[in-house]
Amino acid sequence: MEFSSKLLEQAVYEMSQLPGIGKRTALRLVLHLLRQSESHTEHLTQALTKLRTEIKFCKNCHNISDVELCEICSNPNRDASLVCVVEDVRDVMAIENTSQYRGQYHVLGGKISPLDGIGPQDLTIHSLVEKVKAGEIEEIIFALSSTMEGDTTNFYIYRQLEQYKIKTSTIARGIAVGDELEYADEVTLGRSILNRIPFENSLKN
Amino acid sequence: MEFSSKLLEQAVYEMSQLPGIGKRTALRLVLHLLRQSESHTEHLTQALTKLRTEIKFCKNCHNISDVELCEICSNPNRDASLVCVVEDVRDVMAIENTSQYRGQYHVLGGKISPLDGIGPQDLTIHSLVEKVKAGEIEEIIFALSSTMEGDTTNFYIYRQLEQYKIKTSTIARGIAVGDELEYADEVTLGRSILNRIPFENSLKN
Ligand SMILES: [Zn+2]
Ligand SMILES: [Zn+2]
Repeated sequence: MEFSSKLLEQAVYEMSQLPGIGKRTALRLVLHLLRQSESHTEHLTQALTKLRTEIKFCKNCHNISDVELCEICSNPNRDASLVCVVEDVRDVMAIENTSQYRGQYHVLGGKISPLDGIGPQDLTIHSLVEKVKAGEIEEIIFALSSTMEGDTTNFYIYRQLEQYKIKTSTIARGIAVGDELEYADEVTLGRSILNRIPFENSLKN
Repeated sequence: MEFSSKLLEQAVYEMSQLPGIGKRTALRLVLHLLRQSESHTEHLTQALTKLRTEIKFCKNCHNISDVELCEICSNPNRDASLVCVVEDVRDVMAIENTSQYRGQYHVLGGKISPLDGIGPQDLTIHSLVEKVKAGEIEEIIFALSSTMEGDTTNFYIYRQLEQYKIKTSTIARGIAVGDELEYADEVTLGRSILNRIPFENSLKN
């Protein structure tokens, strides 16, 4: 693409660095901003800057939170001995949306993926093991998406926790194998949590 | 969607104000930025802010430009008596890409669209009429997309210019009716400019 303006080219380039946004889409988005008032762009850039610089994570579950201990972790009605291991905030939102789950979460921040250079040390696995070691957890539910990376991550954590004799389960797959959690409908997702199965059993498939 | 953080909610909201970006996509984009370094978000927001606040338009053709008179308008090898009327910078880029056209452009900045509240006075039509009045132009090529709004805009301009006895043509439609110009392949687009037909003829279809 030959641009008539360096400013335009630079904005399109930066926008197209976002995942799933090609050069053409980026140009369309940038031209949209140009047609709107300056305050429109200001609101967008300020919201992104504010989020990126002031972002906090709950010290217990590592979910994105505006306070030190998130609403779920600080809620006395939630069962702290039951912990659902998820990839990111989207999965927490999806499961919360079912209103079926009364335990807490542990947000890993990703999945083990050698191809993307993401190893166990890049995730919050250590902090999960520490909580288990401290005897705070009775059962862990693995709710990562059932992709190769999800399965690898589940298994890695499972091996780390084996010695502590806690109960481990995975959510029942009413959800199609390979599907992302966040796209599952509420009923299916809610049921798959209630019908969770021991993790050992999931290995036999 | 129930968010665990107001900062996150606000960033997702602003991102989802962009056309074609739903809440879910917005969340995915925002989470991507959170996984990258702060400088990544900084580069994006700075490029957008810089473009939006420092944007200039060529005083002759109204295309986005970093200088007062764009490269095309200031190029003595381009025929200033031949002017191609387009909607926005994307169309200029698409036509330039064909290397078939040696005239200049006139960028309208949109199409007449009563539904979107865009009238003739919101476009650069007046400035085009002034150029014609001044006797600078011999032929105008209409290259707006052949949608209802494009046709309305072509016809509105055509009527404004009728009295000045200049030649008007529309690009030949090798391109499917209703298709956006920017998605046409170079060969088809290049040929459709060479094979342009008198505008009056296009009204008979
Ligand atoms: Zn928490
Ligand atoms: Zn120009």
